[in-house]
Amino acid sequence: MRFSQLYAPTLKEAPSDADLVSIKLLIRGGFVRKVAAGVYTYLPLGFRVLKKIEEIVRQEMNAIGSQEILMPIIQPAELWHETGRWDDYGPEMMKLQDRHERFFTLGPTHEEIITHILRNELKSYKQLPVSLYQIAMKYRDEIRPRFGLMRSREFLMKDAYSFHDSWESLDEAYKKFYSAYSKILERLGLDYLVVEADSGAIGGNESHEFNVLAKYGESTLLYCDCGYAASDEKAEYLFKPIVQNRLPAELELVSTPQSRTVEEVTAFLGVSSREIIKSLIYSGRNGYVMVLIRGDEELNESKLKASMNDQTLTMATPQQVFELLKVPVGFVGPVGLPNGIEIVADLSIKGLKNAVGGALKEGFHYRGILPERDFKIGKWLDLKMVKTGDACPKCGKSLKSAKGIEVGHIFKLGTKYSDKMEGSVTDAQGNAISYVMGCYGWGVSRTIGAIVEQLHDKDGMIWPLEAAPFDIIVTAVNTKDEEIMKRSVEIYELLKKWGYDVLLDDRETSPGMKFKDADLIGIPVRVTLGKKLAEGIVEIKSRTEEKPVMVSVNDGYGPIVEEVERLFARYNPKSVLKPEDE
Amino acid sequence: MRFSQLYAPTLKEAPSDADLVSIKLLIRGGFVRKVAAGVYTYLPLGFRVLKKIEEIVRQEMNAIGSQEILMPIIQPAELWHETGRWDDYGPEMMKLQDRHERFFTLGPTHEEIITHILRNELKSYKQLPVSLYQIAMKYRDEIRPRFGLMRSREFLMKDAYSFHDSWESLDEAYKKFYSAYSKILERLGLDYLVVEADSGAIGGNESHEFNVLAKYGESTLLYCDCGYAASDEKAEYLFKPIVQNRLPAELELVSTPQSRTVEEVTAFLGVSSREIIKSLIYSGRNGYVMVLIRGDEELNESKLKASMNDQTLTMATPQQVFELLKVPVGFVGPVGLPNGIEIVADLSIKGLKNAVGGALKEGFHYRGILPERDFKIGKWLDLKMVKTGDACPKCGKSLKSAKGIEVGHIFKLGTKYSDKMEGSVTDAQGNAISYVMGCYGWGVSRTIGAIVEQLHDKDGMIWPLEAAPFDIIVTAVNTKDEEIMKRSVEIYELLKKWGYDVLLDDRETSPGMKFKDADLIGIPVRVTLGKKLAEGIVEIKSRTEEKPVMVSVNDGYGPIVEEVERLFARYNPKSVLKPEDE
Repeated sequence: MRFSQLYAPTLKEAPSDADLVSIKLLIRGGFVRKVAAGVYTYLPLGFRVLKKIEEIVRQEMNAIGSQEILMPIIQPAELWHETGRWDDYGPEMMKLQDRHERFFTLGPTHEEIITHILRNELKSYKQLPVSLYQIAMKYRDEIRPRFGLMRSREFLMKDAYSFHDSWESLDEAYKKFYSAYSKILERLGLDYLVVEADSGAIGGNESHEFNVLAKYGESTLLYCDCGYAASDEKAEYLFKPIVQNRLPAELELVSTPQSRTVEEVTAFLGVSSREIIKSLIYSGRNGYVMVLIRGDEELNESKLKASMNDQTLTMATPQQVFELLKVPVGFVGPVGLPNGIEIVADLSIKGLKNAVGGALKEGFHYRGILPERDFKIGKWLDLKMVKTGDACPKCGKSLKSAKGIEVGHIFKLGTKYSDKMEGSVTDAQGNAISYVMGCYGWGVSRTIGAIVEQLHDKDGMIWPLEAAPFDIIVTAVNTKDEEIMKRSVEIYELLKKWGYDVLLDDRETSPGMKFKDADLIGIPVRVTLGKKLAEGIVEIKSRTEEKPVMVSVNDGYGPIVEEVERLFARYNPKSVLKPEDE
Repeated sequence: MRFSQLYAPTLKEAPSDADLVSIKLLIRGGFVRKVAAGVYTYLPLGFRVLKKIEEIVRQEMNAIGSQEILMPIIQPAELWHETGRWDDYGPEMMKLQDRHERFFTLGPTHEEIITHILRNELKSYKQLPVSLYQIAMKYRDEIRPRFGLMRSREFLMKDAYSFHDSWESLDEAYKKFYSAYSKILERLGLDYLVVEADSGAIGGNESHEFNVLAKYGESTLLYCDCGYAASDEKAEYLFKPIVQNRLPAELELVSTPQSRTVEEVTAFLGVSSREIIKSLIYSGRNGYVMVLIRGDEELNESKLKASMNDQTLTMATPQQVFELLKVPVGFVGPVGLPNGIEIVADLSIKGLKNAVGGALKEGFHYRGILPERDFKIGKWLDLKMVKTGDACPKCGKSLKSAKGIEVGHIFKLGTKYSDKMEGSVTDAQGNAISYVMGCYGWGVSRTIGAIVEQLHDKDGMIWPLEAAPFDIIVTAVNTKDEEIMKRSVEIYELLKKWGYDVLLDDRETSPGMKFKDADLIGIPVRVTLGKKLAEGIVEIKSRTEEKPVMVSVNDGYGPIVEEVERLFARYNPKSVLKPEDE
């Protein structure tokens, strides 16, 4: 491809709403353009990267025997009603009506469709296992789309689904996907971390997230030298009961006129936040529930939803709370709570004596609260947001943390969907059994953002070899110099014949601009023909090495091919990253 | 791929709502499954064909220097308001709202988006021409989705757009796309016809449709030995004025109590349909218009819309007509029409004397009508639906007709979009000029349906080599016979090494079923290992030849590869088609 023909409008400045380095560089380099909030167009350079990543994912899927299909983007509502997710999925699901007023969703995921297709076809356990995948656009109506390609509303996903007659067979497939995902990240040469994860609205029994490590990753990951690793949404807490050497006091109503938050109450009453019981009201599928957690801890909503098996749980608004309890949020507490509102408590409450909590009366708190004496707890749960330094639930050592960008997520769904949608096969004894399912997502477009977040320097992007839009750029420094142009075209044609994707910079622009653009776009190797060509010298520079190599072409172009191969062999984007680059 | 692993559930019977042979065979062969009306899933076999066609289209686009991009499926309404098409496009456009109640459309086409993207980037005529394309899902909310993949609501399209600083430059690009489209159809080995076409809601100055010929094609094509060819929506009429050797009579009101249709009036009054003036009321952007055409001719709505430059024109309902004229539809006529309703007339009215038409009075018609004396005609237009046997507008000979399936459509848009959306560049003199555009659509998923409509016999599909899901099927007749299985796997592996896409039928099913499925799926060459293997004989059969070839493998598998190559070289699906096959 000749750069003069390539539609790749580069910009000096990124637009002001580009909020992360990845989207800034992708827009500046002419890879993508925003069409609406969270909605992008991939220009030729961006499209090339997208296709290369898609192809890596496709190869690794095919390698583990998954078969490619293509399901519709618009999905009829009826199927989602069967699983209850039409109502449960929440406002992130985009919905529309056709001209006959039938409802459809723009699929955020395809469990319903695939289960529906296969339930009409699968008859016997002998037809299992089956593993199918697709690479297609998905939709999620983010309330605030941001972070460029990483939290957009339209995005390219690979989603795979497997069907089994036993959990053992699912485990085998799950392991294959696990290693295929690791392989994808290794081919891209990215630093990553696989963590135990929360299954969210997809559901199921077990899940793992594949995260690309990056400074501004959205996910917080906790990990330990012992091998334990989990997302903060999932990380379990190694609970040790509090031992307080004091006798339980009597319940005492105290006036706390302006004290509503934990900070205000601790300051006013002169107690520690570890003595406070925080009481939060949540609204879910079965009405309201009160959630208790110690004042110094943070509630993990994902753990709450998962352990209550209710993905619709959301914190009640102050207005809802007031209507329910006739008291402002700051004075809500478990003592004297009306019947019919279940109380669930985080383990941090266990063993607490003489605690402080809202009195359900404006301007008042109780002191001397003793759980189980002063109110009943419906369920003890692990609801704490685990933090750096907390004990590893596996070995007890201090947990470390990192930031990551989730690019892959695999789930053991079990029979969640096949039970609800009556997807079954007959087993060897002729009994109908629900098939056991797994599902496996990979964010293809998101991977572009993740790569750029991890691999860039002050000059621009640094593409891994397998994802680079072009392998080599041949820069003709002065297009008006006939010898330079002639030689540039010859080298360009030669390298193409060697199987490389080559870009020939034949634009009528300054050499400075050409070098800047090559670095910005992040092409792994630049072959430059400039003034030194008069002495038969061509400059070859790797994007990941400081110094160029000078090659003589007086005896032909062979040395260029050899040098390019050497540079590719030792190409390593990570080697040039400096902490200050962003 | 092993057939035992392939997810390709074949069926003996197609579902009752499959209305054409192509969708019947595609469902029976396990290529696709319907998810909702006009919404399909592509199973592995269908997906393979889809990808192969996509790749042919991609190669031909790249070969003419068009660059691949990817635009969003969801498009913000604001851009469509700029061109007025948000309102003009009609109910076939699927619309939705996001959670912030902003409107989007599921793109039926992308002129607005591409013009928007480029207007922010293009500055100078020096940056032109630019040619970009994408291959992506498109949406059209058909009122009655039917004909399987040919009139579905979600479909895969290739859409290309070109930008120019002059009409001459557009003409060049248009010619390139024209020949690229011809090449795609030639690579697929299909009989096709390119016709002048109506531009419809896309607009512009000139367009051509690429049609695959098929018995049940939706489009009627008119063509002549002289080279003229047009769709019936577009075909022009070679007008010859009527010469009637009679004096104009006086206008006479006659009672025609139950006569409303042309047939009823001609029968009642004893006149020819050639003497009747049919008066039709249309409703459009500028209110109502009366359209006149001779009683023996049919109105061509596409020509009406195009010549009135109003794509929103639709025939008024009987109720609308009654509200407007206080008379039932059957008695509507031009004489005495209230002011403010424009009359446009087809050329067939020209020269008519003593004609008959509705009297705008229930139960009455006029005789002796003389156009221009008894009513004013606002515009004379060519509105006639041209039929087989009508004179060719180019040479005057009789037109022939054929049925076709439109797979490609190319348009000279001119400045329709760049004018409305302020897309301009500066020319050599520094003046701002709207860029001249072309757009070029190809129905990728529709091509699958078109191929099967044209190429099938009583046994199933007959894929062209470049679109076949597999090139070769190796049929192991008896999988329990160790020698057969061992040899089958060896031949399968060998043919794969030779670069063929090979399917190994290793299913535990009857030989009859295996042969039937191979023919149904339409794989070009079948290599069969059965009883004759004991004598070292393997049978090789082309899907397009009656007789198999026997090959000895006693001296190795070389002869198999040679014979397969010979069969491919003379492979010709058209050769086996018989008129009765469907």
